[in-house]
Amino acid sequence: MGMTLTEKILARHSHRETVHPGDLIICEVDLVLANDITAPPAIKEFEKIGRPVFDAEKIALIPDHFTPNKDIQSAALAKQVRDFSRRHRIRHYYEVGRVGIEHVLLPEQGLVGPGMITVGADSHTCTYGALGGFATGVGSTDLGVAMATGKAWFKVPESIQVYVHGTKSPYVTGKDLILSLIGRIGVDGALYKSLEFTGPGLSELTMSERLTIANMAIECGAKNGIFPVDDSTLKYEADRFLKPFEIVAADSDAEYCRRIDVDLSLLRPVVAFPHLPENTKPVGTFDPIPIDQVVIGSCTNGRLEDLAQAAAIFANRSVHPEVRCIIIPGSPTVYKEALQAGYLETFINAGCAVAAPTCGPCLGGYMGIMTAGERCVSTTNRNFRGRMGHVESEVYLAGPQVAAASAVLGKIAAPWEV
Amino acid sequence: MGMTLTEKILARHSHRETVHPGDLIICEVDLVLANDITAPPAIKEFEKIGRPVFDAEKIALIPDHFTPNKDIQSAALAKQVRDFSRRHRIRHYYEVGRVGIEHVLLPEQGLVGPGMITVGADSHTCTYGALGGFATGVGSTDLGVAMATGKAWFKVPESIQVYVHGTKSPYVTGKDLILSLIGRIGVDGALYKSLEFTGPGLSELTMSERLTIANMAIECGAKNGIFPVDDSTLKYEADRFLKPFEIVAADSDAEYCRRIDVDLSLLRPVVAFPHLPENTKPVGTFDPIPIDQVVIGSCTNGRLEDLAQAAAIFANRSVHPEVRCIIIPGSPTVYKEALQAGYLETFINAGCAVAAPTCGPCLGGYMGIMTAGERCVSTTNRNFRGRMGHVESEVYLAGPQVAAASAVLGKIAAPWEV
Repeated sequence: MGMTLTEKILARHSHRETVHPGDLIICEVDLVLANDITAPPAIKEFEKIGRPVFDAEKIALIPDHFTPNKDIQSAALAKQVRDFSRRHRIRHYYEVGRVGIEHVLLPEQGLVGPGMITVGADSHTCTYGALGGFATGVGSTDLGVAMATGKAWFKVPESIQVYVHGTKSPYVTGKDLILSLIGRIGVDGALYKSLEFTGPGLSELTMSERLTIANMAIECGAKNGIFPVDDSTLKYEADRFLKPFEIVAADSDAEYCRRIDVDLSLLRPVVAFPHLPENTKPVGTFDPIPIDQVVIGSCTNGRLEDLAQAAAIFANRSVHPEVRCIIIPGSPTVYKEALQAGYLETFINAGCAVAAPTCGPCLGGYMGIMTAGERCVSTTNRNFRGRMGHVESEVYLAGPQVAAASAVLGKIAAPWEV
Repeated sequence: MGMTLTEKILARHSHRETVHPGDLIICEVDLVLANDITAPPAIKEFEKIGRPVFDAEKIALIPDHFTPNKDIQSAALAKQVRDFSRRHRIRHYYEVGRVGIEHVLLPEQGLVGPGMITVGADSHTCTYGALGGFATGVGSTDLGVAMATGKAWFKVPESIQVYVHGTKSPYVTGKDLILSLIGRIGVDGALYKSLEFTGPGLSELTMSERLTIANMAIECGAKNGIFPVDDSTLKYEADRFLKPFEIVAADSDAEYCRRIDVDLSLLRPVVAFPHLPENTKPVGTFDPIPIDQVVIGSCTNGRLEDLAQAAAIFANRSVHPEVRCIIIPGSPTVYKEALQAGYLETFINAGCAVAAPTCGPCLGGYMGIMTAGERCVSTTNRNFRGRMGHVESEVYLAGPQVAAASAVLGKIAAPWEV
């Protein structure tokens, strides 16, 4: 019996010939990640162990959630991470001004690639599966241990094969694929399982879209999401991921606990209604819903391609007078490239606020928090009750084109309506 | 006996031939201003009176302090201002994305001009004196009354004449003039007095510098700061301030309680040490002081000219690895013009974070708050203990060139040191 892609990567990193779902294994990890919220408790656990860091080149500490510092408390957290990074000469510490959203920054900077195991004290660490690695979120205790030992334990997950085929309709994006999938299987539909994407339809998906899809694997409970390494991957990594690597692929006789068929031609731009990502509805199939705010950004949709899609909608259009639209480029590179491409000027002309890279409002941090009764269309990944502020506010998840069109029209809208 | 410029404006607006220092008068006001912090209590007072607004065209409500919303509380404040503005059809309400820092936005948008009386529930309302008007900060109760009646009461202040002459040395800016003046006379040196700037040296000062100078009149306790209307003023207002106006000037025999001589040629770039704006020292005259953060922006120095000065320092240079530099354009127009001029790209290349327009860190709001033991060089206006975060953090006030040079060198530095 062969192995899935996830099983193969886990086997290699645990020095075993094979692994099977349910096995408890200890793996060597290639990258250990934490942010300004999760690093401080991980550092506390690390210090209990009393060892040096296992490898200062393989730790990334990214203060992205509440920076530039929201308040005194967040400043103290950021300082803890900064002081630790200096003390241990952490190679991949990024300071404000050079930092971006961790899951935008790490792929862009070539820190994650095929076959790697990345553990991060952040649930959306699964993003890096888009590049053919095993990447998953862990708690701060496990992260502290990983910083000291370079190892992490896993229960080998069962794998679900998501077979993608067909051709996308206009305006359908990776965000619509993953939101629709979560809508079908529910927010616990892949609980502790690996979501392995395969099929001829993957060639329709850009690397940016794959990053969006893998990013939201956790939103249906998956342990990880993973894509095979193909030409798009190799092209994306060519001038980024400079370590030598061997391409690992799933065996043809790998065993999957479930197969889900995704026909791209059947997908439509969707919106996930409050208060769960599974509450998806195609845009255009519900009564007008007036909105107060739009957020375009986050680890899910804060890359250049996302801003390009939004800019195409905003060109020669204005944000609705009663809407505030906040655009947050995911990294300094995204910011700069969006500036050079003219997107930022388009956003400013349209009446958007363009913020410095941060997770900010996605998790109710800052930079666009809502009070009671307010509604936001957001390109982020979670619309749980109170996620972006008051428990009586509402978040509607969508892709950048739906978000931008909604900002223009002042209600949840399809891109073809503007 | 003639009248000072302030006395003349107050006399006209109180329908008197003359006024004298100490007179209690009631004036008609031309513009009434509040922000997201001060409008809510003013609205409460206004509603007690139970009248409609005196003139929806003459009220400006500018949510600039904690927007894009820092948290649920600030979101609720912003919503109060928004709802009030819609209910009363307030003409000059600016939404997030279109809003800037009030004292940058109002001059730029042509809402303030010569001879006007502006009352604002914000201490830096005195900024508009740069344009030859009487502008002063009032409490929220007085502001609520002004929104209902269009009137405000004043005790006519004595006037101090600041006689400016000579020629500026390189790197000396308006910020250095006002910081040096405060250093000479102290933070209570002009308590409840009008600071009237005159003299041949004014021609050396750009409108942006005059706005910086008038902005900080309050930092030596002045009721207002005011400049005569000259060619620079008329040129600045030509395509902005579209109301007809008559040029008012001080009488040649006006009486001043004090005359202060400012020889521009004696000024040097200065820094105001913690924890008072009067603690000024010329850069280069003290031992190296390492810093953690630089903030360039605010109602004091958030205009295009300020960003141009900073960009000139950052061109082909980088922010020191241990420093975070936060640049906050004062308005969407400043943002756009800085983008078009290439300044934003210079900032990003240098490793600065460029934020959406907001007061943010200046008042310890958000977007660059410090924890204990941190130091910031800031182009803002106040360095009181705890102003930008923890009571054990320190703020050093300076102009944009000193701030930028300090960001590059990682310590308080003169622009000629980079």
